[in-house]
Amino acid sequence: MRGNYVTILSLTVPNRNNCSGVFTRSNLLTMKTVKYTKLVLIVAYALSLALPVRALGSAPASSHLNLMPVPASVRLETGRLAINGSFNVAVKDHTDDRLRAGIARMLTRLAGRTVLTLPADLTADEGTATLVVQCERAGDIVPSLSENESYSLEVTDQQARLVAPTVVGALRGLETFLQLLQGDRDGYYLPGIKIQDQPRFQWRGLLIDVGRHYEPMEVLKRNLDAMAAVKLNVFHWHLTEDQGFRVESRKFPKLHALGSDGFFYTQDQVREIVSYARDRGIRVMPEFDIPGHSTSWLVGYPEIGSAPGPFKIERRAGIFEPALDPTREQTYKFLDAFLGEMAALFPDAYMHIGGDENEGKQWDRNPQVQAFMKAKGIKDNHSLQAYFNQRVLNILQKHGKKMIGWEEILQPDLPKEAVIHSWRGPDSLAAAAKQGYNGILSAGYYIDLIFPSSQHYLADPIPLNSTLTAEEARHVLGGEATMWGEWVSPETIDSRIWPRTAAIAERLWSPRTVTDIDDMYRRLSVISYQLEELGLTHEKNYGMLLRRLAGSDDTGPLRTLASIVEPLKEYRRYQMRPQTMLSPLTGLVDAARPDSETARQFAANVDAFLSDAPRFSLYRPNLERTLVEWQTAGRALGPMIDRSPALKETRPLADNLSVIADAGLEAISYLSAGDAATTEWRDAQLAKLNEAAKPRAALEFVVITSVRKLVIAAAELPQLRSTTPAEWKKRVTIMASPPAAPS
Amino acid sequence: MRGNYVTILSLTVPNRNNCSGVFTRSNLLTMKTVKYTKLVLIVAYALSLALPVRALGSAPASSHLNLMPVPASVRLETGRLAINGSFNVAVKDHTDDRLRAGIARMLTRLAGRTVLTLPADLTADEGTATLVVQCERAGDIVPSLSENESYSLEVTDQQARLVAPTVVGALRGLETFLQLLQGDRDGYYLPGIKIQDQPRFQWRGLLIDVGRHYEPMEVLKRNLDAMAAVKLNVFHWHLTEDQGFRVESRKFPKLHALGSDGFFYTQDQVREIVSYARDRGIRVMPEFDIPGHSTSWLVGYPEIGSAPGPFKIERRAGIFEPALDPTREQTYKFLDAFLGEMAALFPDAYMHIGGDENEGKQWDRNPQVQAFMKAKGIKDNHSLQAYFNQRVLNILQKHGKKMIGWEEILQPDLPKEAVIHSWRGPDSLAAAAKQGYNGILSAGYYIDLIFPSSQHYLADPIPLNSTLTAEEARHVLGGEATMWGEWVSPETIDSRIWPRTAAIAERLWSPRTVTDIDDMYRRLSVISYQLEELGLTHEKNYGMLLRRLAGSDDTGPLRTLASIVEPLKEYRRYQMRPQTMLSPLTGLVDAARPDSETARQFAANVDAFLSDAPRFSLYRPNLERTLVEWQTAGRALGPMIDRSPALKETRPLADNLSVIADAGLEAISYLSAGDAATTEWRDAQLAKLNEAAKPRAALEFVVITSVRKLVIAAAELPQLRSTTPAEWKKRVTIMASPPAAPS
Repeated sequence: MRGNYVTILSLTVPNRNNCSGVFTRSNLLTMKTVKYTKLVLIVAYALSLALPVRALGSAPASSHLNLMPVPASVRLETGRLAINGSFNVAVKDHTDDRLRAGIARMLTRLAGRTVLTLPADLTADEGTATLVVQCERAGDIVPSLSENESYSLEVTDQQARLVAPTVVGALRGLETFLQLLQGDRDGYYLPGIKIQDQPRFQWRGLLIDVGRHYEPMEVLKRNLDAMAAVKLNVFHWHLTEDQGFRVESRKFPKLHALGSDGFFYTQDQVREIVSYARDRGIRVMPEFDIPGHSTSWLVGYPEIGSAPGPFKIERRAGIFEPALDPTREQTYKFLDAFLGEMAALFPDAYMHIGGDENEGKQWDRNPQVQAFMKAKGIKDNHSLQAYFNQRVLNILQKHGKKMIGWEEILQPDLPKEAVIHSWRGPDSLAAAAKQGYNGILSAGYYIDLIFPSSQHYLADPIPLNSTLTAEEARHVLGGEATMWGEWVSPETIDSRIWPRTAAIAERLWSPRTVTDIDDMYRRLSVISYQLEELGLTHEKNYGMLLRRLAGSDDTGPLRTLASIVEPLKEYRRYQMRPQTMLSPLTGLVDAARPDSETARQFAANVDAFLSDAPRFSLYRPNLERTLVEWQTAGRALGPMIDRSPALKETRPLADNLSVIADAGLEAISYLSAGDAATTEWRDAQLAKLNEAAKPRAALEFVVITSVRKLVIAAAELPQLRSTTPAEWKKRVTIMASPPAAPS
Repeated sequence: MRGNYVTILSLTVPNRNNCSGVFTRSNLLTMKTVKYTKLVLIVAYALSLALPVRALGSAPASSHLNLMPVPASVRLETGRLAINGSFNVAVKDHTDDRLRAGIARMLTRLAGRTVLTLPADLTADEGTATLVVQCERAGDIVPSLSENESYSLEVTDQQARLVAPTVVGALRGLETFLQLLQGDRDGYYLPGIKIQDQPRFQWRGLLIDVGRHYEPMEVLKRNLDAMAAVKLNVFHWHLTEDQGFRVESRKFPKLHALGSDGFFYTQDQVREIVSYARDRGIRVMPEFDIPGHSTSWLVGYPEIGSAPGPFKIERRAGIFEPALDPTREQTYKFLDAFLGEMAALFPDAYMHIGGDENEGKQWDRNPQVQAFMKAKGIKDNHSLQAYFNQRVLNILQKHGKKMIGWEEILQPDLPKEAVIHSWRGPDSLAAAAKQGYNGILSAGYYIDLIFPSSQHYLADPIPLNSTLTAEEARHVLGGEATMWGEWVSPETIDSRIWPRTAAIAERLWSPRTVTDIDDMYRRLSVISYQLEELGLTHEKNYGMLLRRLAGSDDTGPLRTLASIVEPLKEYRRYQMRPQTMLSPLTGLVDAARPDSETARQFAANVDAFLSDAPRFSLYRPNLERTLVEWQTAGRALGPMIDRSPALKETRPLADNLSVIADAGLEAISYLSAGDAATTEWRDAQLAKLNEAAKPRAALEFVVITSVRKLVIAAAELPQLRSTTPAEWKKRVTIMASPPAAPS
């Protein structure tokens, strides 16, 4: 191996763009003077961990790369580029306002982190500039699916050089540049490195549903900034819902005037968002969900509905009956005019027409619809919706747009130009691809359902067991995280989107082989606080929401509780704790966050503690400190809840917090003393833990399994002596898994 | 005394509005059946503390009123009004969009705090409504100085009734209503109460300087919300400065195009702010600072300057030479057109023309100006500026505006219609009042200078020792907190304005006798987190800024350090740590906040500890815990600083943190042991503390005086035996005060 650098990630990935100068594994290997086998092993090992290995003898031990998404190819080199007050930038070849603004934003963030006053002009001499940005051309005027987003970034002792065919590629590279910033006693620097990067998928989106809850302009803007930071490139703007019609229509002003409670985006604001997104290399694809999910349309225009009306803006969550009438020409005339207006407003090539969750109940009850179906020989509602889709597709094509819809639109007669948006599972995406339809994946990326990042991270648009041919796989364009809006407010939405969406962004950009969960979480925690510099509130509103609940700035015990509970997953929150769209989203369930880091650390500590059998000393103080903190918090919460009725629903959680802590502490005490607990004690504790595991206030503890392990282990001590540590640990783990009932 | 209530605050204050039904002390007294002397004493005592006394036997012991500003008259009654999901509102007599919107905002905040789903409609029956809002009339169409802001609020077991002559009065009352919300085991409630309220001064403002640093629309909006929450009623929009011209001029587009770096408010945005403020009963008074502070004007229009130019946007802080040329007719033609355009844009009756800090150096050097002065017999620059002011006043009058300017405009020939804005001291305000000029006070309210709330709180526009007659005193209209913009960014500005400005708001609204510092701080901490529900970031951005500095979400030790340092006061920050307007405001000096609550508590704990002489056991564990935390943090900061070069400048502070903690712990150890320290030890410690007291990184420790007290007391133990505790405490306090040098 050459002594001066270690290849940590260098692989050929399917490159959908015309990108020159890619480092491939094969050409890298031909450069080597070392035993190829060994190198390949190192590369494979690094890949399997996705864990950047530090350059030998150069960077300090604390140095880790915090790149997210992981680039296609990274080669660490020796040396480092110092970042100080004399930092400057040269722009070479193509330059334009978008590139200059992108560099200015990067400089502001760099200055913010380093507290250095940096020059704002971009006129440095190429030879002496700290950073040279060399761009070939502007790229597409309107951000497009085929935009070349590749870039290469080389950092040496003297200079960083970012080369990209397009401005969007350069913007992606500037984000990588910022992520490379590190610091030590000698100051800020970038490590010597060679990066060649391009996305695995060209469609990498975030859907924000502003229909159920309106989100102000600044929420959208800061989320566009965050999207750009993790190299997402499609903002899917879900603009209409049963609960709200959020865009100004000049042709049909009753749509927004009567369908939005006054919370809609003016056409000027739409243009502002489109321009803001374009500046960041992000497409803006609007969705007008039809024929179902359309109650808010019908408040102003009942004449295009399938039932007589009148209609009122829906306040509940769920699936509702109102649907456009697909049998009347008036409906298509309306859609032609409205979608034509929107087609002119939104420059993106695609328009999303929804098409999901229409149960057709109003159609069943409408004699005119039934007569139409009979006359046309349309056999069922699915076919009727297919007819509707075909008509809408024609309208969109007339206005120069490509149609995309949720997977329900995949009906036998669907034209091949339509794009399928899979939301119920990857199978529909594969089925569509096999039939020759392009598609994108959202199944697995439903961030509103509160699943952990790890779960989203492993959902691959083309799973390892995919049976798609290479040709078919090309129909899989990418995916989108979906921020459905039932239970998010401007105060909480960031915490539902971030940081988990960064893990999804990595799945869609990075090589499929980058799948190490631990390293993903390590990097995610860094990216999470870096996103704050863009104004994101996922971290800082946590404390604010807890202060409001506590009615005080002294939130200690509440914070402890909140750190180890999570909102109920899937749709159980609403089932347990029904609210309307007019309800405040300020409860503990709103403050609590998905993907508890405390629970993850606790689980790791319990495993480490138990692995140290039979001594049980490693991690003991740490575990005990944590459990005592829970015990103390459990006791302190009572008086806090007395003062704050908003917390009343959480009293059972506070009580259970003490139960959980007591069980854990007693178990540790047995284990440390080498004194086996009785099965009676174990069963009593497990019964209490099962009780504590029941959700309350739409929240659930996410540390119960770990405490179960401790309890079971305490009673298993005698068996330990007749088994290997590995077998023993396995046994405890199996017994502690949630479905296991106490004997 | 009648058993069912205690009169806690009830006084007649100068009432500048026509307000009927005021409770006065005299009519209250005639209502009584108790010994008047005793009642007056209770009233006087309560006033002296400004500390609401709980109603006997009704509210629980933890119940305190958290009203800020304290109303003119408050009478606690027995009983309580439950606030639950059946809360509803009836609107009686006058109603309009502004009132409905104000009630809707109140409902959103009430729902947010209580996590209750509240009905949004205002159609409850007057008899059964939880809250009745009864308003006589709309009030002034454009918020004005003479607006009647009074209201009365009566809460009984059955109902809350808010009565106000105008919508603005009702809005003020709704804020009081929200501040009365309390909770206990039985749920949320408002205590039974009778409030009669109106402001002491009718001009209660906040200046925001957007010239030096631009502030986005959402910053202005959330600050307008916060102003309304503490009953401020003038947003003084300081729109132009040497460093930036921030408003769109259609007549002279080079003003904003060349003078703002692209950061200016469009005229639509100005109208949006004016409307937003009006909705909250807030006037918007623009300031166009002339003839000095005008560099940014001259970038686009050098022809109205007093020197040939060219001019560049100023990037430094300070006082600069560029000034308009008061001797050319072209200047007045320009101002006539420009101020005319602005007069149409801003509906407020007043326009602020600055007039401060013009040193006239360009005038001295300009032969044409000198010739003009000679020809006109103008003897000096002051007189020349008076001439200029007279011309500008004529222009403003032509456009229907009243002129206000900084105190420099108070020149012999100044027309009586002009209003004086005092910034260097209350004397100029009194002088102006004696000459018959109206005036407002900002001296004492310079919140950019980082003084504690207590200091601002005691600055009275009409001090106790004022020699103004009642007639003259009527010329004192009120005051304004001034948020000068040199060192604030959108991320930090809220923490410079809030919560301290709430104390100033109380000074300007509440009776002059409300002056208890401890109670002010108690209420301020409640108001501070309540302001967060309006989107204010003064609390939550603290953690965010620390995370960015630490490069991690593990900020513990840094937070400890930041909690006991404050940015340098007055103008010493810039002197010690020069920056430009383009520098990042992300250092520890930006994260650290004025008015350290930790230091205040520590000082109180040290005093309590020392008062317990000679046992020294009270508060000892508490003090030791704090000092050990500092010691630990001091040690942990080293490695954190190593990783984060942005913290490098704070290394001496980290070192001194340990020095301070060690000194305090050793002193406590001596005192607790009853073992007097040597004078050598004392002097060595004091020398170290003096060294630690020196500012670093534009920050200074604000706990040194308290630690000095401990050190001196440790060496004073022998003397203690020959003196009374009171004398001893006094002696220690005097010795510990900052100027005292060690022997």
